[in-house]
Amino acid sequence: MSNSHTESRSASAASGSANPLVVEVTRGSMVESRHRAAVAVVDADGKVVHGWGDIAQPVYGRSAIKPLQALPLIESGAADRYNVSVAEIALACASHNGEPRHVELVRAWLKRIGCSVEDLECGGHMPYHDASVEALIRSGSKPTALFNNCSGKHTGFLSTARHLGEATRGYINLEHPVQQRILGALEQICGVDLSDAARGIDGCGIPVIAVPLGNMAMGMARLVDTAKLPAARAAAAKRIVEAMAQEPFLVAGTDRFCTQIMNDIGRKVVLKTGAEGVYTASLRELGLGVALKVDDGAGRGAEIAMGQVLRHLGVIAPEEAGKLGDILTPPVRNRVGRETGRVKPSAGSPF
Amino acid sequence: MSNSHTESRSASAASGSANPLVVEVTRGSMVESRHRAAVAVVDADGKVVHGWGDIAQPVYGRSAIKPLQALPLIESGAADRYNVSVAEIALACASHNGEPRHVELVRAWLKRIGCSVEDLECGGHMPYHDASVEALIRSGSKPTALFNNCSGKHTGFLSTARHLGEATRGYINLEHPVQQRILGALEQICGVDLSDAARGIDGCGIPVIAVPLGNMAMGMARLVDTAKLPAARAAAAKRIVEAMAQEPFLVAGTDRFCTQIMNDIGRKVVLKTGAEGVYTASLRELGLGVALKVDDGAGRGAEIAMGQVLRHLGVIAPEEAGKLGDILTPPVRNRVGRETGRVKPSAGSPF
Repeated sequence: MSNSHTESRSASAASGSANPLVVEVTRGSMVESRHRAAVAVVDADGKVVHGWGDIAQPVYGRSAIKPLQALPLIESGAADRYNVSVAEIALACASHNGEPRHVELVRAWLKRIGCSVEDLECGGHMPYHDASVEALIRSGSKPTALFNNCSGKHTGFLSTARHLGEATRGYINLEHPVQQRILGALEQICGVDLSDAARGIDGCGIPVIAVPLGNMAMGMARLVDTAKLPAARAAAAKRIVEAMAQEPFLVAGTDRFCTQIMNDIGRKVVLKTGAEGVYTASLRELGLGVALKVDDGAGRGAEIAMGQVLRHLGVIAPEEAGKLGDILTPPVRNRVGRETGRVKPSAGSPF
Repeated sequence: MSNSHTESRSASAASGSANPLVVEVTRGSMVESRHRAAVAVVDADGKVVHGWGDIAQPVYGRSAIKPLQALPLIESGAADRYNVSVAEIALACASHNGEPRHVELVRAWLKRIGCSVEDLECGGHMPYHDASVEALIRSGSKPTALFNNCSGKHTGFLSTARHLGEATRGYINLEHPVQQRILGALEQICGVDLSDAARGIDGCGIPVIAVPLGNMAMGMARLVDTAKLPAARAAAAKRIVEAMAQEPFLVAGTDRFCTQIMNDIGRKVVLKTGAEGVYTASLRELGLGVALKVDDGAGRGAEIAMGQVLRHLGVIAPEEAGKLGDILTPPVRNRVGRETGRVKPSAGSPF
């Protein structure tokens, strides 16, 4: 695979071809809404095991590639220098709910590296967790940057900058060494030259750089099949995967899909959600990576598509799928709690 | 038009044809997400002025057909019996924000018909308006059914039941005369036999009944071109349209698209959002109805598609479009308020 894939995109878009329907939302006796997606399942050598839809399309990985963005934290020696724990590595890869445990761990980690909430450049937002929102409002506080779902990732960035004696201010800018190291790691592990890739700014202020979906999947495969990675990168990948597998709650939180799947099917997969319908997974037993993007950006589409891909690949076994029923095909409920429909794989989904 | 349209749906779906791309969400130098939709622009006689995508597809109108569901409130004489005000008629058509004015008006209306919040069967949910959520949480209260965005519609239903001496309990069920009257009004004004239509339950507990999108647009046209409606229905339609036009805030609320458009372009259009990417409009000067459905159910897609349709039809004039810039093509902002992209009509949109 190479980034020549990006050039096939315009032809595909111009022809009006559409990615396959993969998720449907029913209500009563009818399908009410539908989600299309492209899905790549790729091994560490770049062999495409499955490619549904346009897997050459460039996609901003958003938070779904946080496990890749955490590589320099470990490779640089910063994690060892500051005794960064397994829990903290999981938080560096997290889009967390802003629940008390997430917030307090990030606060303590920041303090240990000689930083504070003032150094975080991600901005604040209300927690993703209703009870935490209510507690915050009742306390009369505003959500600081500690509550930002990316606060662990940003604390990882600050740790690396501190360790290497770089300015902490401006660490979110593309020109800063923190972001340049991430760009280099991304190019290497995804096997793609990103010099001319589309760019923008993420919700938390850091650069987003478009990676062909198939290359993103290869990067996720290389987190769990590290044979061809440089030794320091291979070691870092192993620690990242292990940390996510050991601390699913810290990667997301209460009632979150990432956390539930990792909790329930154990060590077979680490997975990570991203904004605008991106999802990635690294399959430990199979040595494969998955990357998917829902055309319309819907999170519900991405979750249910990922669940179905994992079933298709046998990573979620039939008996496990039964146990996960309401997570894999969640009910739609009305305001009094009555089930009015389901989010589920499309009848005509290719997987 | 007839409901034979519904039969063409399966063929269309099986052929894999996709509705056109109408809205795109950019980030930096790239389109990140895309929304497809079908859009029908139809006159009161059923003539299709524009039909983009599959306008024969059956669609649950959800809250976008509240103006049609309000017809029996007026036709039955309930509105006159209980001195239902212009503001209250607007609330009967509203998906309101649960701001204080919405909640207090509904409370007072309920009291006047001898009912209370206990009679509302819609369930409660947090207001759609952040400051109102915070005020509610700070007060230590839970959101009652008064805060439900549909509480005005339900109070209209209760008013009709009271006026006609029907049981108020169970007014949300399909078998109740309240819902049977609505079904009849819907069939007549949309010109379609719904005996075999797909059905389900809405978020607020009332029945949803699928109407071919083109017929839904015709129903919206007949609200403003009433020549061929029965006299009582024509009079009711005029009062409904006038109420929505006079009270845009009550139809939605602070920072809401429906309210902003009606506030800013005056009396040319009344429009109404619905869940799962449905939007309708009744164009007073042109005597046309618009109904659109975003395939994936995204509200951002529906709003921006509706704005573009109104521009295309000249209902939003070029100079008005300039004034409405950030409403018609809203910025996407990150957590510190920086603009990172835009939601806007697709480059290849057919309108």
